[in-house]
Amino acid sequence: MVSTKFINQLNQKYGIRFHNEKLLEEAFTHSSYANEHPNDGIRDYEKLEFLGDAVLELAVSDYLYRHFPKLNEGELTRLRSNVVRTEGFSEFAIECGFQNEINLGRGEEKAGARNRKTLLEDVFEAFNGALFLDQGMDGVQKFLKKTVYPLIDKGEFTDSRDYKTDLQEFLQQNGPVKIEYQVISESQMPSHFVVELKINDKVQSTGEGHNKKAAEQQAAKAALQKLE
Amino acid sequence: MVSTKFINQLNQKYGIRFHNEKLLEEAFTHSSYANEHPNDGIRDYEKLEFLGDAVLELAVSDYLYRHFPKLNEGELTRLRSNVVRTEGFSEFAIECGFQNEINLGRGEEKAGARNRKTLLEDVFEAFNGALFLDQGMDGVQKFLKKTVYPLIDKGEFTDSRDYKTDLQEFLQQNGPVKIEYQVISESQMPSHFVVELKINDKVQSTGEGHNKKAAEQQAAKAALQKLE
Repeated sequence: MVSTKFINQLNQKYGIRFHNEKLLEEAFTHSSYANEHPNDGIRDYEKLEFLGDAVLELAVSDYLYRHFPKLNEGELTRLRSNVVRTEGFSEFAIECGFQNEINLGRGEEKAGARNRKTLLEDVFEAFNGALFLDQGMDGVQKFLKKTVYPLIDKGEFTDSRDYKTDLQEFLQQNGPVKIEYQVISESQMPSHFVVELKINDKVQSTGEGHNKKAAEQQAAKAALQKLE
Repeated sequence: MVSTKFINQLNQKYGIRFHNEKLLEEAFTHSSYANEHPNDGIRDYEKLEFLGDAVLELAVSDYLYRHFPKLNEGELTRLRSNVVRTEGFSEFAIECGFQNEINLGRGEEKAGARNRKTLLEDVFEAFNGALFLDQGMDGVQKFLKKTVYPLIDKGEFTDSRDYKTDLQEFLQQNGPVKIEYQVISESQMPSHFVVELKINDKVQSTGEGHNKKAAEQQAAKAALQKLE
């Protein structure tokens, strides 16, 4: 069941206190656990995930519409799709301390489901569904302001220039060149990656970012700036 | 510009009065019109459509979650997808009297864009985006309660048995049979179709529905009930 430590942390870090803690419990309950405990009357998170998916879609759309007035509809759609395509949600779930609160069945626990990205993504959606039911859109917006939106503002989801491709094309104009990216440091809460870029076995640059892909782009950008 | 008649009708029929009528104007403005009138400072509806898409997704998800507690997540997702896949939105746009209010460029008007289904769908989404900005989710829910939700309750979007396929399989067990569906009556505001079903050139049944597909299903159902 949801730990007191987590409930306090949710309050301190995000100012969230659920009126109905059963919703919170449901958001963290995987079907494998619900199946193993049929007499607990506890539901799995799937219906909250269904709702949370749409909650996140609107919350992010609303934020983008209001905060990026210069983007046209196509740019807004692309940016929204980058934010809500859920890949990043697993990192938020870990950062928010959801991972340790998930109720898993024994088999799934053994199989390592607690670290499974898709499961963490589902739980992040379900949590937002529960938050919407408990505190409405305002509660969700308040939470996202402390988690997802700062990264949107930092441009983490922006389809900007693809520096990796540009670098490759620049380097290989006159024949093949060996290009390698390697993660040299990785930490979580908050998630932070450092990547080293080697060109023909020689270190050329490093890049940092919220995830591996972003760090690689930064490394490629730095290399291009030196070379171009 | 939006007609006084329409503004009154919106108020009388749906209890909606926009605080900011510019949003309403924007929701009904096609890019072809905005391009032809660059000095009017009027924007086309595309950004409101971007927002409206997510507004409808959440509004419908919330409604389904609360009103269909017995459906599981898979069933909810399928039903939501049937409602928001936008095909039906053009009919709602016509029913709500949006069609005559659309600001179109001359070329598009000539090309018959006012009757184009996809344009009517876009306008319905944009209207809901505008309504959300003007009156929040409560305003949208109030509007949908008088338009979309009654049809959800009537089962218009429910993936039920596919009677047309079942009928065909039943009839063609012992060789080919000629099956024809024909619309014999069609009216709008509200949208209503009557379809006649002929088997080997003999009228077998009729069916009624909100659209052609639903009416055909009803005709096939009636025929199956006679034959089985």
